[in-house]
Amino acid sequence: MTATENNSHPTLHTCLSPALLNLYDVSSSIVVIIDVLRATSTIATALANGAKSIIPVDSVHECIRIGKEMACITAGERDGKIAEGLAYGNSPFEYPETFVKDKTLVLTTTNGTKLLHMALKNNAKAIVTASFPNLSATCDYLIQQKQNVILGCAAWKDRINIEDTLFAGAVVSKIKQHFSINCDSTQIAETLYNNASADLFEFMKQKNASHYQRLAGYGLEKDIKYCLTADVANVLCVYKEGSLISFAKIKALL
Amino acid sequence: MTATENNSHPTLHTCLSPALLNLYDVSSSIVVIIDVLRATSTIATALANGAKSIIPVDSVHECIRIGKEMACITAGERDGKIAEGLAYGNSPFEYPETFVKDKTLVLTTTNGTKLLHMALKNNAKAIVTASFPNLSATCDYLIQQKQNVILGCAAWKDRINIEDTLFAGAVVSKIKQHFSINCDSTQIAETLYNNASADLFEFMKQKNASHYQRLAGYGLEKDIKYCLTADVANVLCVYKEGSLISFAKIKALL
Repeated sequence: MTATENNSHPTLHTCLSPALLNLYDVSSSIVVIIDVLRATSTIATALANGAKSIIPVDSVHECIRIGKEMACITAGERDGKIAEGLAYGNSPFEYPETFVKDKTLVLTTTNGTKLLHMALKNNAKAIVTASFPNLSATCDYLIQQKQNVILGCAAWKDRINIEDTLFAGAVVSKIKQHFSINCDSTQIAETLYNNASADLFEFMKQKNASHYQRLAGYGLEKDIKYCLTADVANVLCVYKEGSLISFAKIKALL
Repeated sequence: MTATENNSHPTLHTCLSPALLNLYDVSSSIVVIIDVLRATSTIATALANGAKSIIPVDSVHECIRIGKEMACITAGERDGKIAEGLAYGNSPFEYPETFVKDKTLVLTTTNGTKLLHMALKNNAKAIVTASFPNLSATCDYLIQQKQNVILGCAAWKDRINIEDTLFAGAVVSKIKQHFSINCDSTQIAETLYNNASADLFEFMKQKNASHYQRLAGYGLEKDIKYCLTADVANVLCVYKEGSLISFAKIKALL
């Protein structure tokens, strides 16, 4: 590809921590919210299993309020455990089709929902949530849109983490030829992914990833393995008027 | 190494952008200021070539003021070029022994001096500056001190960059067995370095690193190659009472 061809492509940036989001031109971009362990993996799973919609909220208090008002499922975690006052947690295995089909979830998480609201406040052109379980659906959408993209890692309380960086790298490796890339964080993410792609779980374990330790300490290796598996809940998760909804449902509404 | 042994070691963290420094416990740590292209490479070079001391300042205005007051060399850059009103720039090749021996430099740079002042304001236990030219001297010191360490990347206007991350990774790979590491950014930096170590310059070029492009655009490949070369100006650069000074000079003063 020549430099001239490359310049005609939309841009692709990777933001490795919410604390860096202000450095990027959010308002001209599609922002991909990445919170692999476990918010965006669970969102993909619930929507793939037929949930009507997911309302992401900032606080446990707001989650309880909306849950009562709309008689929907309250779900969420703080520091990796079910938050007090909520009915369900943040594990994808809590949301099988038999449970979530046609239901609405109100969800609050430590990092992912916070970043989503930051992107919203900064007038992102569009917001989608993504993780390994819906990798391909997300990549197909980003290629089709021909818009600037920011891969936004939710991180852990602003600290950069391995798993969100790995997912950003996985997206980069799948879509890079369609974008103009002048972003060191994007290159770092892709290099990390290329090192880990043969066995993502083993890489997380070997590198003693902080979130691996945290969840494995609660006996949640099964969750980690699932959240690192590509395309097991392969729906596009789009934020629209306060809710996350699968693209299939949006099409049905049109 | 067992977990118990590991816990008795001091901690090692990597901070990939000044915008994330507030997440780390600066006041209990030695902070290593890393600005590979080119501030901390140039500092090592000038001190190795016999400069008496280097006074890092935040602004061009302050640089000019001190330069006049103390009759010393004013040096610095903004956006990779010599800043207006200053006599010299930020290239290590401007500071051979014949020029800098026994002289004092006042230096201001876009990113490195800013991070140094942040570490100072946050009461860092000690501050050293480092880059590939003084890699081994820095690593030897960090191992000897047996204190917590934060590898602080100066980045580019808060955006994470490849070269500072690579240097952090080089330090990690040399000293990790002496530290307890529970930091994803540290693992990311080391993985990046392991990928690049066979030819750092070629890696920067291949990955289209933003600072590679910026400096190569000014014809400064020679500077980039030098700044990525290990131990060519192998002195420990310590910040003490307003100045950077080589450790050899500190010992001579005692």
